[in-house]
Amino acid sequence: MIENKYLRSFVNRSRFLFGLSVVIIGFSNNVNAQKKTAEKRNLIQYVDPMIGTAKMGHTYPGATVPFGSVQLSPETDTIAYSVNGKYNGDVYKYCAGYQYEDKTIVGFSHTHFSGTGHSDLGDFLIMPTTGKLQLNPGVASKPQSGYRSAFSHSTEKAEPAYYSVLLEDHKIKAELTATTRVGMHQYTFPKSDEAHIILDLTSGIYNYDKKNVWTFVRIENDTLITGYRQTNGWARTRTVYFAMSFNKKIKSYGQATPEKSVYRGFWGRFDQTKNFPEMAGQNLKLFFDFDTEEGEKIKIKMALSPVSSAGALENMKKEVPGWDFEKVKKQSQEIWNNELNKIQIEAIQKEDFVNFYTAMYHAFLGPTEYMDLDGNYKGLDMNVHTADKFTNYTSYSLWDTYRALHPLFNIVQPKRNSDMVSSMLAHSDQSVHKMLPIWSHYANENWCMIGYHSVSVVADAIVKGNTNFDPEKALQACVNTARVPYYDGLELYMKKGYVPEDKNGASVSKTLEYAYDDWTIAQAAKKLGKTEIYNEFIERSKNYKNVYDAKTGFMRPKLDDGTFKKEFDPLDTHGQGFIEGNSWNYSLYVPQDPAEMIKLMGGNDKFNVRLDSLFSMHLPDKYFENTEDITRDGIIGNYVHGNEPSHHVVYLYNWTNSPWKAQDKIRMILKKMYRNGADGLGGNDDFGQMSAWYIFSSLGFYPVAPGSEDYALGSPLVKNAIFNLENGKTFEVETVNQSEKNVFVSKVLLNGKQLDKPFLKHSEVINGGKITFYMSAKPNKKKY
Amino acid sequence: MIENKYLRSFVNRSRFLFGLSVVIIGFSNNVNAQKKTAEKRNLIQYVDPMIGTAKMGHTYPGATVPFGSVQLSPETDTIAYSVNGKYNGDVYKYCAGYQYEDKTIVGFSHTHFSGTGHSDLGDFLIMPTTGKLQLNPGVASKPQSGYRSAFSHSTEKAEPAYYSVLLEDHKIKAELTATTRVGMHQYTFPKSDEAHIILDLTSGIYNYDKKNVWTFVRIENDTLITGYRQTNGWARTRTVYFAMSFNKKIKSYGQATPEKSVYRGFWGRFDQTKNFPEMAGQNLKLFFDFDTEEGEKIKIKMALSPVSSAGALENMKKEVPGWDFEKVKKQSQEIWNNELNKIQIEAIQKEDFVNFYTAMYHAFLGPTEYMDLDGNYKGLDMNVHTADKFTNYTSYSLWDTYRALHPLFNIVQPKRNSDMVSSMLAHSDQSVHKMLPIWSHYANENWCMIGYHSVSVVADAIVKGNTNFDPEKALQACVNTARVPYYDGLELYMKKGYVPEDKNGASVSKTLEYAYDDWTIAQAAKKLGKTEIYNEFIERSKNYKNVYDAKTGFMRPKLDDGTFKKEFDPLDTHGQGFIEGNSWNYSLYVPQDPAEMIKLMGGNDKFNVRLDSLFSMHLPDKYFENTEDITRDGIIGNYVHGNEPSHHVVYLYNWTNSPWKAQDKIRMILKKMYRNGADGLGGNDDFGQMSAWYIFSSLGFYPVAPGSEDYALGSPLVKNAIFNLENGKTFEVETVNQSEKNVFVSKVLLNGKQLDKPFLKHSEVINGGKITFYMSAKPNKKKY
Repeated sequence: MIENKYLRSFVNRSRFLFGLSVVIIGFSNNVNAQKKTAEKRNLIQYVDPMIGTAKMGHTYPGATVPFGSVQLSPETDTIAYSVNGKYNGDVYKYCAGYQYEDKTIVGFSHTHFSGTGHSDLGDFLIMPTTGKLQLNPGVASKPQSGYRSAFSHSTEKAEPAYYSVLLEDHKIKAELTATTRVGMHQYTFPKSDEAHIILDLTSGIYNYDKKNVWTFVRIENDTLITGYRQTNGWARTRTVYFAMSFNKKIKSYGQATPEKSVYRGFWGRFDQTKNFPEMAGQNLKLFFDFDTEEGEKIKIKMALSPVSSAGALENMKKEVPGWDFEKVKKQSQEIWNNELNKIQIEAIQKEDFVNFYTAMYHAFLGPTEYMDLDGNYKGLDMNVHTADKFTNYTSYSLWDTYRALHPLFNIVQPKRNSDMVSSMLAHSDQSVHKMLPIWSHYANENWCMIGYHSVSVVADAIVKGNTNFDPEKALQACVNTARVPYYDGLELYMKKGYVPEDKNGASVSKTLEYAYDDWTIAQAAKKLGKTEIYNEFIERSKNYKNVYDAKTGFMRPKLDDGTFKKEFDPLDTHGQGFIEGNSWNYSLYVPQDPAEMIKLMGGNDKFNVRLDSLFSMHLPDKYFENTEDITRDGIIGNYVHGNEPSHHVVYLYNWTNSPWKAQDKIRMILKKMYRNGADGLGGNDDFGQMSAWYIFSSLGFYPVAPGSEDYALGSPLVKNAIFNLENGKTFEVETVNQSEKNVFVSKVLLNGKQLDKPFLKHSEVINGGKITFYMSAKPNKKKY
Repeated sequence: MIENKYLRSFVNRSRFLFGLSVVIIGFSNNVNAQKKTAEKRNLIQYVDPMIGTAKMGHTYPGATVPFGSVQLSPETDTIAYSVNGKYNGDVYKYCAGYQYEDKTIVGFSHTHFSGTGHSDLGDFLIMPTTGKLQLNPGVASKPQSGYRSAFSHSTEKAEPAYYSVLLEDHKIKAELTATTRVGMHQYTFPKSDEAHIILDLTSGIYNYDKKNVWTFVRIENDTLITGYRQTNGWARTRTVYFAMSFNKKIKSYGQATPEKSVYRGFWGRFDQTKNFPEMAGQNLKLFFDFDTEEGEKIKIKMALSPVSSAGALENMKKEVPGWDFEKVKKQSQEIWNNELNKIQIEAIQKEDFVNFYTAMYHAFLGPTEYMDLDGNYKGLDMNVHTADKFTNYTSYSLWDTYRALHPLFNIVQPKRNSDMVSSMLAHSDQSVHKMLPIWSHYANENWCMIGYHSVSVVADAIVKGNTNFDPEKALQACVNTARVPYYDGLELYMKKGYVPEDKNGASVSKTLEYAYDDWTIAQAAKKLGKTEIYNEFIERSKNYKNVYDAKTGFMRPKLDDGTFKKEFDPLDTHGQGFIEGNSWNYSLYVPQDPAEMIKLMGGNDKFNVRLDSLFSMHLPDKYFENTEDITRDGIIGNYVHGNEPSHHVVYLYNWTNSPWKAQDKIRMILKKMYRNGADGLGGNDDFGQMSAWYIFSSLGFYPVAPGSEDYALGSPLVKNAIFNLENGKTFEVETVNQSEKNVFVSKVLLNGKQLDKPFLKHSEVINGGKITFYMSAKPNKKKY
């Protein structure tokens, strides 16, 4: 069913007239006939923004550009809308505002995280309606109880930078596109003298606990609205400013009149609820009335700014000066196509194209640009800063993305990745803790998850020489971050070499991740010749040994008194010293020194058995229930791919004498965990980390330990791939005898020379060249 | 009793070593011996900031500089503090935060209006305490129930730019001084290992209805704090930023933990309530702990900014780089002395010196500077604007201050007044209504009171040629303002020539004030040669005739159908078509054309009787109760001096054939309405308007109709006065035979030439010269 749907989808999309000269490539039956080429192809046709919109994928289907500040996407529900005005509590389900199974659309808001396991944003919900004015969204079971509308997936179309759907209750065709800072709406109305545009500033994602702090709106003239929304959500103090323009004069407008939304002093002297051009309060809901002819298009440009409505207006004027919706859509889709063409693949079958380019699409959704066109943005200190010679980014889901996404960026987005480091350094400068970000968005640190993995991102860039920033300053920021005593058990970690479980929960996960992070600092220090820092942190990087319990063979929570915690179940997660991963998975988290870890765990043979078991054992339900953020589809045996701590695990075979054991498993994971269709993702995409794993692994290599130059080789899924690098060079991944069944690698040539170990260096990629995988249905059981 | 107090006070103040060469002038017994001189005198010694702090004066006693952004003053209570956490409802009483009768001080906050009849502000309350840490203010009846302290007026000292008091419960001597943007505190502690500084961001004036919207604080290092407070008070959307510095390292710090003040994501992982350097939430209360030696001084600099904490920090660095409290105090007092020396008087008796220079002091407390040192400020649109070639001011109590305060500024503060007009023009540019301010403060229009009297201020400046702004643009802003149809009955006023009482209350007051305002626009248009505008607005200026009821001889509310409202009591105010004045008072409100008004009201004799009655009749209690903002002291007969609409009334005798009748009454008003002592003001000082009346009238002339060049002559109270004008010229007011009893003027010479009518022109003042009043105990009943 899903395949048929996507086949239809391809046919439809092929009709899309792409503005560039493109080479239309086909599917498995004619791949061999294709010429390998760096010529630009039409790749956006393979992107399906619907993938991950069902269940726990937490992706959004709406319109955005690569790393764009605006993510204009439908909300099918959010926490705010529930029966009888009570929160339904399912805020997690609506992290991206959209669930594929839903039957109604509440409206279209302008900011969304992609694939996260926590939520926020959902700013400036716009909904076009006809008929009786309703200022409440109503409930899904009765769409006509409010401004929401029923819709059907059959009228829905999602492409990069384009989304459209028929709002059935209002007989309005909604179309959305976006530039970096501007969302553009095109609503095709029926004839009506009761046509409305609702702007609901009370709507939002993660609308817990009176999220709105303040809202402020001015009707500047008969087509222009400005204002802002200030929220206390996941980000504690967050304000987004806007400028909103209509292509048609407003007939009349007004607001709902909740508490505090009118001027105290003026109340009674005249009507502030209708056609009064300034409004402010905690909970503004506005409406704009129009008369429409049959088929008339009302267009809206909504520009955002992190600084001011004046900034938003400038952004609008410069990014979308006109009203040509098709032109904006075309330009933004060209931008997408340029980004997607950074890796041109040939695949075995059609589904793989879709998975690959949708992964590329999802990988390029964040971090997002966070500044006005003039470089101004609001910093952590709530002061306005100017990004000096870099583009400022925000929304760092670093516990996820340090693993593969930022390493991927060091290959295909080096300029952006270096700017992301610059943004993190600016964050550190502004931070009152002088810390690099943990999980930061919109000028707020939300402290989500553990570790201080920004240091891995910084160190990886330093080690790989991708530094349009001051590396010594960056190293110092890493060191500062790793030395903040009051941060999450760090004082005891520094003192004792581990986080004591009785002092600070998830202590093993923290100890292991701190140790890895420390190792990346050491690597950066080494590269920069800072011996003292190297010595300090290489020593700290060995702290993983302090939580290894030789008796059980597992990493195990240790108490403040130096003894291991008595009760211990390596299959369990919570309260056991771990987070998002049990000891079976987390015990393998020593990416910085797998060889030493294997030795610690009894050597090659014992470790082989252990790894094999991980993938083959059954995880009983009672443990699965403690596994966060994923469906059953997200695990294989006890290997939890849907969460990140095991992302490197399959590649650990490369440090044993059986690298071949990784190869079929990688191909299995690629097939099992990434599928076409709305429910194609087994867990949160986690702002592109899951997608980055797919991209690396399908290309045959993976960064087990960011902060090192090394990639571990696996088993490519593609038939061929060309990296079009920013430095003008190309790196080619070639396969021989590639097929669905030929999942094993019999030999690998790098630039024609056979490799004697299953590793590749970053410099070997970035300097251009070719790697050739000889594929086979049978493993090559030699150690390489 | 009061006199004795002030006599002591003078003696004390004479000990004050003033940094300039000063001429110490004495009191009545040696005035004649003094040499008239433009040499700088020590005039701050005559200022008593306590005047008006009792009852309804609504002045504050704390430290500020002329037109300063910071008004650092004690709060004896505010609405926020009441029994059992319930509002006591007496927000009006605490407009200035301080009531003389109170026995406890809650703390010292940094922003206060002077003399207003509505309240707001009270930002950043600081209180030093010793002993057990208490984070609630407690109640006045039990000061030890909270951080507040008992105090006594005997330890209290209030001077321009200096305030000090002993906080008895904590044994701390508190001293305050200020620069334009920085409040400086000096607290002398006893020996204590429990010394605290409380920073209560929940405290505020007009703390109705959860005034705090958001508070945000960072502990930048062990002496520096930054942050902001955002409120929804009288100003709907108002944010003040701060940077606060200690002269001593903080030992430890923390916050009370109300709802939402901690990071959601981080809660539980470590303690955010103690020594965690970033805090945000709706209701932050902070404490800073110190150890103190006996007599140790903890000093605090608190800098404010309307833009950002970075701006506040820059303001601090530049305005108060060091820690020398005495030096700051001395500099700020020198600034005061310079301003006070703009008019040097000789008086009949000591009380008059105090009344005069305290009036000067109060007149120079607002509008207040509202921008960072770099010229940046937040505008009505919440965007940051830069004041281009002017100083930006805020807090325009225009319904009051257009009458005499801004005209006074056109003489003694022309640069500032012109900049105030520029500030109002910027407001108009930013206004979504394109209107000049009505009652505006801190980038908010609060729409308080009636009329659009900014046009009077603008026109007065244009007519008097005090225009460092573009007068044509300014005129256009006036015209725009006067044509906004949805503003407070204006559409009907424009259509019908009056505001119909059945459509919009206080209709007579509005009609009369609009008509006057329109006349000022006509005068400005005439000066600028804009005939069309002149014609339009001179026509509108006659609209006062439309609410004159010839039958009763009073201005009377008219209905939409053109008939007068039936029930009518010219002694009553509310619901009678008036506001802050009954028809007896308001019927005389035709300052733009008293001659025509007198004709309308039956001519000279009838009008004389009428005016005489006003001052001699008794206003029964039931009417007095409807008179706002004043005590019984604020009225003479039915003449209500405590409210503004009658401020010009006594001078109307100048348009009759009995100008002499004004003279004794003016002297009576000066004596009766302005007295030494905390309860010396009969009503709100109204941001200097009451004081400006005093200053003008005691100097012998008054601007009956701002927008004209003319001043009406009265009866000077001073013996002599020298205006030291900004243009370098001096204008002298001289009296002959001046005494308490010689209240009548027998003749007036201007530059030696006898005047034949009781008027003076602005140009005659501003170009320098001398006016000589010959005083007598008997009236000169000739018409002049």
